[in-house]
Amino acid sequence: MPSLSEKEIIDTIFAPLAQGSKTALGLTDDAALWVPASHRDYVITKDSLVAGVHFFADDPPSAIGWKALAVNLSDLAAKGAEPEAYLLAIALPEELPTEWIREFASGLKALQEEAKCHLIGGDTVRTPGPLTISITAFGGIKKNGFVARKGAKPGDQIYVSGTIGDAALGLILHDPDSELQINLSEENRAYLINRYLRPEPRIRLAGPVGKFATAAMDVSDGLAGDLNAICVLSDCGAKILVEQLPLSAAAQAVLDQSPGLLSRVLSGGDDYEILLTVPPRQSKDLEKAAGDVGTAVTCIGEIHGEAGAGVTIFDRGQPVKLDADRYRHF
Amino acid sequence: MPSLSEKEIIDTIFAPLAQGSKTALGLTDDAALWVPASHRDYVITKDSLVAGVHFFADDPPSAIGWKALAVNLSDLAAKGAEPEAYLLAIALPEELPTEWIREFASGLKALQEEAKCHLIGGDTVRTPGPLTISITAFGGIKKNGFVARKGAKPGDQIYVSGTIGDAALGLILHDPDSELQINLSEENRAYLINRYLRPEPRIRLAGPVGKFATAAMDVSDGLAGDLNAICVLSDCGAKILVEQLPLSAAAQAVLDQSPGLLSRVLSGGDDYEILLTVPPRQSKDLEKAAGDVGTAVTCIGEIHGEAGAGVTIFDRGQPVKLDADRYRHF
Repeated sequence: MPSLSEKEIIDTIFAPLAQGSKTALGLTDDAALWVPASHRDYVITKDSLVAGVHFFADDPPSAIGWKALAVNLSDLAAKGAEPEAYLLAIALPEELPTEWIREFASGLKALQEEAKCHLIGGDTVRTPGPLTISITAFGGIKKNGFVARKGAKPGDQIYVSGTIGDAALGLILHDPDSELQINLSEENRAYLINRYLRPEPRIRLAGPVGKFATAAMDVSDGLAGDLNAICVLSDCGAKILVEQLPLSAAAQAVLDQSPGLLSRVLSGGDDYEILLTVPPRQSKDLEKAAGDVGTAVTCIGEIHGEAGAGVTIFDRGQPVKLDADRYRHF
Repeated sequence: MPSLSEKEIIDTIFAPLAQGSKTALGLTDDAALWVPASHRDYVITKDSLVAGVHFFADDPPSAIGWKALAVNLSDLAAKGAEPEAYLLAIALPEELPTEWIREFASGLKALQEEAKCHLIGGDTVRTPGPLTISITAFGGIKKNGFVARKGAKPGDQIYVSGTIGDAALGLILHDPDSELQINLSEENRAYLINRYLRPEPRIRLAGPVGKFATAAMDVSDGLAGDLNAICVLSDCGAKILVEQLPLSAAAQAVLDQSPGLLSRVLSGGDDYEILLTVPPRQSKDLEKAAGDVGTAVTCIGEIHGEAGAGVTIFDRGQPVKLDADRYRHF
């Protein structure tokens, strides 16, 4: 049982995360005071995580804190927004020691320092059930700079950041109930598991996304399903080529042994890479801008005009059929 | 088990609550697009509710929806802010029928129509534990119009809106484990329980609070403890007079039979009335402005300069000692 009261938890563990923010009012009031910049619009997102559903209750608490913020900042980056602030609601089970909360906060701190944003408010409550976290994050964009899911046009090139499938494979390796036997170096195993535990939100891509993307979203529910969501809203179809997928060396090592796991790479969730579409004439500019901020993007296919066709996938000319067209969190 | 998928729940049950809001983008994207008005600042609050902790799991779902939004709008009103929008994160237990979610949404709808605000985003997830709700709400204020907890000055008059203690007494009557025997008319009983189930956020008081209050907060954790929070931050003390407390006829009927419950009236939570301090020369103006918007406010005492003295309470000249100086939700 946390030996600290709610007020003590806020004052000693969470208030340091609010230092440097005028908006937060030191977490001493009932609410935060937000003074928007006159030349900006704002993107607001809210993602929740439940122990046993979105992470394992015995995952390292710092990784849980990191991930809870990362999944929200990932949404901001995919809309072209730079993180500004976030609010945290956390429901703590009775048996959770204070040290757990401290380490959880250290994970938040590590990412908020990287992202240059602050905690500005929230709520800390008890729960008889699993640890439950809900973060609301704000990011700033230029006026009219929002990048929607809707907006992809026939001929647009489809890009993803980083590498795809690492987290879905990492989850299989990390899951104690998984029966998969794979012969993998410790380094590759650790890499994939870490990609699941500590996804890297592509914060620095917000600028290039805002500048070049006709549509974008983060890959949280699986590449195929998320691309399909863009197609549905944009009234178009998409074709992607497996041989162009950016894979990490570790993911490739898994696929070399278990080619059947390709469907997990294509439809597993938790990548938190950015999926975006770009007019062909701007492809090279996007690639250069992404390279300039240190995050590679790779062209994996093309948007076409056949609305309702969804996502078609080819592997060296052969159509690929997925086990499920969309990984569903719910 | 909800027979609908997450997407179906959003599209059919929650998206109607977003109708009329440009910010919400129809709940079809990963985030909301917030275009702030150039002449306003914003107040942001986030309150969570857990079944079995903040409400009974078998309370009417529409009352739970109402209350989840009400406790957030109450925070806004106490800061002088008018509701604009809110985000909802809800973790749904497997066994919850779709009809429950519909009725929950009807409670949100009833209050958002009264408050003239919209749902603009959020997250719907599953949980193996109790129903857990987290709402983030935004309200607009005039530039520099934020009313903090800090700011009360010696000589300021202490006011509360509405009546005090109804919800704490209503909780006792509503709690199936309560052993209290009270002879109460059905009307009075229903009144008090309803005050617990469906607190009325004092939305229309936002204007008068913003105009006259030196400090304010909503009474969520109990009058004495919340007033103490204002004293601590404002570096002052407070004296309140029991004979001036605004009590409903139903609460008075309970106290007539069980005078010992006065401590629950003073330190029980869930009133969601507004507690504010006002310079004496503006008392009459506040009373008039509050009357003009249809919400009575009552002077219950005065701020004095003795920092650290906390809240002293007198009942017809006799000091009152509370069982606990602060009801703690946590």
